[in-house]
Amino acid sequence: MKKIQSLLAEIGQTKSNLHAKDFLLTWEQTPAELRQVLMLAEAIKRLRGQNIDTRVFGTGIGVSVFRDNSTRTRFSYASALNLLGLTQQDLDEGKSQIAHGETVRETANMISFCADAIGIRDDMFLGAGNAYMREVGAALDDGFAQGVLPQRPAVINLQCDIDHPTQSMADLAWLQEHFGSLDKLKGKKIAMTWAYSPSYGKPLSVPQGIIGLMTRFGMDVTLAHPEGYDLIPAVVKVAHKNAKASGGGFRQVATMEEAFKGADIVYPKSWAPYKVMQQRTKLLRKNDHDGLKALEKACLAQNAQHQHWHCDEAMMKRTAKGRALYMHCLPADITGVSCERGEVSAGVFDQYRIQTYKEAGWKPYIIAAMIMARRFADPAQVLAQVLAEAPARVRVAGQ
Amino acid sequence: MKKIQSLLAEIGQTKSNLHAKDFLLTWEQTPAELRQVLMLAEAIKRLRGQNIDTRVFGTGIGVSVFRDNSTRTRFSYASALNLLGLTQQDLDEGKSQIAHGETVRETANMISFCADAIGIRDDMFLGAGNAYMREVGAALDDGFAQGVLPQRPAVINLQCDIDHPTQSMADLAWLQEHFGSLDKLKGKKIAMTWAYSPSYGKPLSVPQGIIGLMTRFGMDVTLAHPEGYDLIPAVVKVAHKNAKASGGGFRQVATMEEAFKGADIVYPKSWAPYKVMQQRTKLLRKNDHDGLKALEKACLAQNAQHQHWHCDEAMMKRTAKGRALYMHCLPADITGVSCERGEVSAGVFDQYRIQTYKEAGWKPYIIAAMIMARRFADPAQVLAQVLAEAPARVRVAGQ
Amino acid sequence: MKKIQSLLAEIGQTKSNLHAKDFLLTWEQTPAELRQVLMLAEAIKRLRGQNIDTRVFGTGIGVSVFRDNSTRTRFSYASALNLLGLTQQDLDEGKSQIAHGETVRETANMISFCADAIGIRDDMFLGAGNAYMREVGAALDDGFAQGVLPQRPAVINLQCDIDHPTQSMADLAWLQEHFGSLDKLKGKKIAMTWAYSPSYGKPLSVPQGIIGLMTRFGMDVTLAHPEGYDLIPAVVKVAHKNAKASGGGFRQVATMEEAFKGADIVYPKSWAPYKVMQQRTKLLRKNDHDGLKALEKACLAQNAQHQHWHCDEAMMKRTAKGRALYMHCLPADITGVSCERGEVSAGVFDQYRIQTYKEAGWKPYIIAAMIMARRFADPAQVLAQVLAEAPARVRVAGQ
Repeated sequence: MKKIQSLLAEIGQTKSNLHAKDFLLTWEQTPAELRQVLMLAEAIKRLRGQNIDTRVFGTGIGVSVFRDNSTRTRFSYASALNLLGLTQQDLDEGKSQIAHGETVRETANMISFCADAIGIRDDMFLGAGNAYMREVGAALDDGFAQGVLPQRPAVINLQCDIDHPTQSMADLAWLQEHFGSLDKLKGKKIAMTWAYSPSYGKPLSVPQGIIGLMTRFGMDVTLAHPEGYDLIPAVVKVAHKNAKASGGGFRQVATMEEAFKGADIVYPKSWAPYKVMQQRTKLLRKNDHDGLKALEKACLAQNAQHQHWHCDEAMMKRTAKGRALYMHCLPADITGVSCERGEVSAGVFDQYRIQTYKEAGWKPYIIAAMIMARRFADPAQVLAQVLAEAPARVRVAGQ
Repeated sequence: MKKIQSLLAEIGQTKSNLHAKDFLLTWEQTPAELRQVLMLAEAIKRLRGQNIDTRVFGTGIGVSVFRDNSTRTRFSYASALNLLGLTQQDLDEGKSQIAHGETVRETANMISFCADAIGIRDDMFLGAGNAYMREVGAALDDGFAQGVLPQRPAVINLQCDIDHPTQSMADLAWLQEHFGSLDKLKGKKIAMTWAYSPSYGKPLSVPQGIIGLMTRFGMDVTLAHPEGYDLIPAVVKVAHKNAKASGGGFRQVATMEEAFKGADIVYPKSWAPYKVMQQRTKLLRKNDHDGLKALEKACLAQNAQHQHWHCDEAMMKRTAKGRALYMHCLPADITGVSCERGEVSAGVFDQYRIQTYKEAGWKPYIIAAMIMARRFADPAQVLAQVLAEAPARVRVAGQ
Repeated sequence: MKKIQSLLAEIGQTKSNLHAKDFLLTWEQTPAELRQVLMLAEAIKRLRGQNIDTRVFGTGIGVSVFRDNSTRTRFSYASALNLLGLTQQDLDEGKSQIAHGETVRETANMISFCADAIGIRDDMFLGAGNAYMREVGAALDDGFAQGVLPQRPAVINLQCDIDHPTQSMADLAWLQEHFGSLDKLKGKKIAMTWAYSPSYGKPLSVPQGIIGLMTRFGMDVTLAHPEGYDLIPAVVKVAHKNAKASGGGFRQVATMEEAFKGADIVYPKSWAPYKVMQQRTKLLRKNDHDGLKALEKACLAQNAQHQHWHCDEAMMKRTAKGRALYMHCLPADITGVSCERGEVSAGVFDQYRIQTYKEAGWKPYIIAAMIMARRFADPAQVLAQVLAEAPARVRVAGQ
């Protein structure tokens, strides 16, 4: 209980402007704002852990817009809404269509008369996902200002073409839990590296999210990928800038071996080259099925040249004391399990399996924290009230 | 607060039999019953606006049956359920199938053991949608009488082949808000006119709903459409009868120009001719894809002859002081925006955009009001209790 | 009220280990445990009947996994979750795929961070459905033990390849209601017989569930089917063993006529032969569409030889006093109504229609009872608290 109370006190003292803006890219938030979300997530998790009903909404809709299939993110978002008392309603516009202009403006208002949150996953089209979220946000601002909407719903980025803030923040919350505190992450070496997978077109948002966020707290971030598998150049610049500002480091190396050397944390994961994503976006917009097939074939052939980008026992031996923390956003492509040859060996994965589950377990709380930070001017005081009342999440006989 | 209290007092004094019947066509309800629904909607909206949690159900299912795609109506219904504390559950029977007889009787009971509302959208088949709702209602009556169901769920018409009562009642609520009161609508001229759209098969329920309802409150209703674009004759008769009874007017004219002349309110919207809908229903029942394609082609060609039925700036100048209130159920076909040539010019639409959003914003409250009117013998007293307790919809720190 | 109080007292005195195991097959539970579920279901139904809000969870997710289409079971499960305060979230993995190993282990954890129940319907693959549920259960045990999950969700068998416990328990609850008590079922003759249907591939879980459960309470159970339409041999053995232990009877006869003779209860229903289900499972696993078509054709031809397995008025005359209670899990294949020739004549079905609806009406409560029995060490005390507080399910004015 004391832990929660001191957390709430600290949140209350944190200077944050999150109440007035959507959390769409981690690098648009101040360190204090990022900490606020981490602390809120921890507070909500602890409250629930003590069987306290964390609902802060009596009624209210949480809209979900998934422009790509999703099980994990869908459940995390649904769980976050449930933790806060919101009811999920799915907007299914058809997955291939990129709405814009009048349609976005109108739809954003039509779904929001009773909405407190809109979670959007839109990672298929480079240059479009994050922009779409901002377009929705602007339409909501206008609708609220004009008296159409009685409240301004929080827009939650559940993965876009640029960043995956609920993932990277959940990853950071897990690192904080694992190493004991944010401060203890200072100077820790983390290797974000490409890894081979027999699939193509995996979004860039996870590696970009990791290098964009982990450079904020004084960590020593290394990015590694085969030649040609670049991330969006602007995000790499952001990582450099962040590292300078936080007193951490950011460098790029050419092999997984070099990246793993002395690493405290490794995050080996496949992604598609930036330029391929650009081509793919063009082809998707044109609905060019033949072009997409040809691109896929070319990419898989290119990928196949980099099968040695594989996180196995030998690779792990290169890390600090041979036992870096392995991370993954899941599902991982596990060699001999989910595919013949993948990102990680079965032995390494199994050793860290439970830890990757715990990593994922932070996501519902991070999302709930983001919604609270956007919708409540003083979320700590609201949670303090919840703590004081302590309604039971699950009825306990004899109380 | 006073406004809500006086509203509730007025609702309490309104003689209504809505507790004992489903609200399937506006013209089956007395003026007092229509006013009761309008006042309940306003009361619920005001309560929510004052951050009061309006849930009157602790548990309970709100079934949705959508036999046609729908985003707006789906969200409105979901929002209404959420406002009242009901949980949505979708019945997906397959869209092309017209269930009847034993299947309807059985299914209606199977989905209703814990249901307090069943919202149905069934507008594809002329002669079938409203009939289906009554069949469901009869099955529920029987199930309740026989002790199968512990409660009789409200059946809500979310659009049928004949009427669209949640739309027309939301439209009326908006007019009441815009002009200040129901009384002030007396004598107002409203033009319900056909407008060109490059699509076909749009249901008749909106124009029929408008002429069937707006003639109830002393308005001067004009219906206009190209030759051959008739509505169901029986509904046109209803409009004539209503106008006589209410002291209003109803007339039909042959051009948009004439309808707009001196109008205080205009509602330009495309629909398919009644006879085309009859043919289409036959073809749909036979699953005659070639026949449907041929019909669509013929209709689009017919439509194309009436592109001058277009609500543009010049047309609007004919209205009262050149600034009639433009209405639409959305989405509108906007020239140069959603299509090359449509129902309304971009300029006119943009001028009234925010107002059409506000018009749409009434729908969740109208639906919630209809459910309450059906399920509570004295809804005003129930809401008075909610007002007295005033549970917070969104937690407010420091209370 | 007294009835509920004495029910709760009796539940409290019932020795049950259901809190520590999933309820996956009725024959794995002790008679006391089965009675506990029946009593809990009745208590929840009575509480709701007295307008008491039965929610025992404030927040929490109830996951649904339906690997076969379902309306009735889906609504029953959704209603059960709603009765308890849980929010449904559907896991849609694609219907044809049989996940196992790493995928099951990971997915089970990923969907359960905030889950209190997971309801699974998996009846397509012989040898796979029940096994899958146990695999999920083991993954949840592990996740809970390792600190990944803050709670161990209840796994609910919503129909598998072996048993259909929510159906058979609802059937038993209905028999108890109809005949007055469990004790009065002792010695009652029930005929579980195959009946003709112009469809194929109907699961074995209903007849297996019935002979596996009804033999537990001293009933005299007769199983009848045409030659070759065997159930899983192991389940037939279970029925024999159960009958011996409970002082009831179990026998197999070769005709519907013989089975109906003197029966107090009849349950005529189509199913596919065990061996056909084995073949079908193999073909499904191989995605052998031609093989499946050939098998279907052969089976329908085989079925057609047994059209005289038909529950009509003449057949019913053979039963005790000519008026045995007709039961069915619904939907029944009704001759001249849902098909040309089916399981039951229209006359017989219509006579018992309302009773089959009441039979079905128990399912939401049985499922809710199973969740409560799994999640609460002392469910009676929890419900006693609900009864004492008596929050209104539907707001009542003037209270």
